Amino acid sequence: MAWRLFARHGVRRGAQVTVLAMTSQDYVHGYSEVEATRLADQAGTLAELLHHDTEYPAGSRVLEAGCGVGAQTRILARRSPAARFVSVDVSAASLALARAALATEGLTNVEFQRADLFALPFADACFDHVFVCFVLEHLRQPENALPSLLRVLRPGGSLTVIEGDHGSAFFHPKSARAQRTIECLNQAQAAAGGDALIGRRLYPLLRAAGLDDVQVSPRFVYADRSRPGWVDGFTRKTFIAMVEGAAESARRLGLIDQAAWDEGIADLKRSAENDGTFCYTFFKAVARKG
Amino acid sequence: MAWRLFARHGVRRGAQVTVLAMTSQDYVHGYSEVEATRLADQAGTLAELLHHDTEYPAGSRVLEAGCGVGAQTRILARRSPAARFVSVDVSAASLALARAALATEGLTNVEFQRADLFALPFADACFDHVFVCFVLEHLRQPENALPSLLRVLRPGGSLTVIEGDHGSAFFHPKSARAQRTIECLNQAQAAAGGDALIGRRLYPLLRAAGLDDVQVSPRFVYADRSRPGWVDGFTRKTFIAMVEGAAESARRLGLIDQAAWDEGIADLKRSAENDGTFCYTFFKAVARKG
Repeated sequence: MAWRLFARHGVRRGAQVTVLAMTSQDYVHGYSEVEATRLADQAGTLAELLHHDTEYPAGSRVLEAGCGVGAQTRILARRSPAARFVSVDVSAASLALARAALATEGLTNVEFQRADLFALPFADACFDHVFVCFVLEHLRQPENALPSLLRVLRPGGSLTVIEGDHGSAFFHPKSARAQRTIECLNQAQAAAGGDALIGRRLYPLLRAAGLDDVQVSPRFVYADRSRPGWVDGFTRKTFIAMVEGAAESARRLGLIDQAAWDEGIADLKRSAENDGTFCYTFFKAVARKG
Repeated sequence: MAWRLFARHGVRRGAQVTVLAMTSQDYVHGYSEVEATRLADQAGTLAELLHHDTEYPAGSRVLEAGCGVGAQTRILARRSPAARFVSVDVSAASLALARAALATEGLTNVEFQRADLFALPFADACFDHVFVCFVLEHLRQPENALPSLLRVLRPGGSLTVIEGDHGSAFFHPKSARAQRTIECLNQAQAAAGGDALIGRRLYPLLRAAGLDDVQVSPRFVYADRSRPGWVDGFTRKTFIAMVEGAAESARRLGLIDQAAWDEGIADLKRSAENDGTFCYTFFKAVARKG
């Protein structure tokens, strides 16, 4: 659920991360091979939006907490080739995939380790920087995870947190039925103990954890027909696919009936067609341990 | 209602337009005189966010349609001192204020004229550029205004449209009661024939009007305590003040009772206090007449 789908997407494809300038001038109707490649790179494009300003100095020691299958790890490792990453996850299966992905790309500056976010097997203050992406949204009490992360961060070191906020999604044509399917996703995530609307509260979360210089920088995604890569790569294959992935949970929880769900998804898909538009905001916070 | 309030705000204050870099480093608790001035400049700061990339070449002839009291006019005229502006509005009272504001600032490259958007007293294709800001949101059928604007625009000339989208507003702490007050504003605007959610559909609107190279660029406003100028100048004095301005309409239309309104406004105000956060998106579209 949630952005894990996006993460897996990125890894399965093994695409190069490239910044894509998409304007109506670039757009060729009828998808050429180049266009197909460009669309396949969309997970990478979104990653650029989120990560282009994440760089760690040579020799610095960085903890990536909750690396999953390594979608962000690849980007971090490539962007900061002289930093040394320790990427941890609770899932051995995810770690195996992450290791394989990094090996395929010849990235050797990452050490993977199985670990629980709430009981990290590291000494106090042994990392220069800590990085968490699409992790806090899944935790029952994200504020309880922060002390654990901050324990292993040295004073003066930085914490970077990236999260989405499904309440930020809006689109044309507007549709209450489509909004209802997104709310089902949010409620399913809440039922699993998470918070799909966490992005808007990164600032108070990090402040309450005692961090200094909390700087939140929203990352706005906008897709219309002049940006076909974003329409296909983000609206369709990332966001709508993620909402559709909540179908079973929504039904199991009795949040919606099949007909209403189908109508809502159909309406949501209209935002990716013809003259539809789609908007979503991610939040990236960087803060310093005093 | 709507952004007119922001516009009047800007003019009444007669503040210089300056780009303000607001970081937590800048922030001094306890408002100094400098800080007070900075807060007073907020209308200008928002204007910079919207207009910093609007510049017209020397000698070009620009129509500003629906100039109101001249809040945007001042910025346009100052940013493009060698362009010649013709700014029109239906309201003689607004035009008088606009004229006075421009004269106060010594700006002489604007000619004001009373005119109806739907019956512009100008020859075909006599303008190089047309600019409309916070105008289409108030029209019963914005798509009907575009042909009138495009008639007076020369082929190859540009149309710039700026609008907000109240459906883009979200905040922390989240509150259904606060969202309800925003919906009242939207419904009141709809009852008056407008569309407070027009921003998201600028792309299809301009495409349907036959414009080429439609490029929409969202302008995201984010306010938290590390950006006190935005919290005070935008969240409190622009957005919440605008919602509060819809109180009478909402009651007259029977949209909400007094208690629910008061609770919603109180919740909305919490987003501007302590560790609250507030987000809003404007949309700027630039397109070319083929």
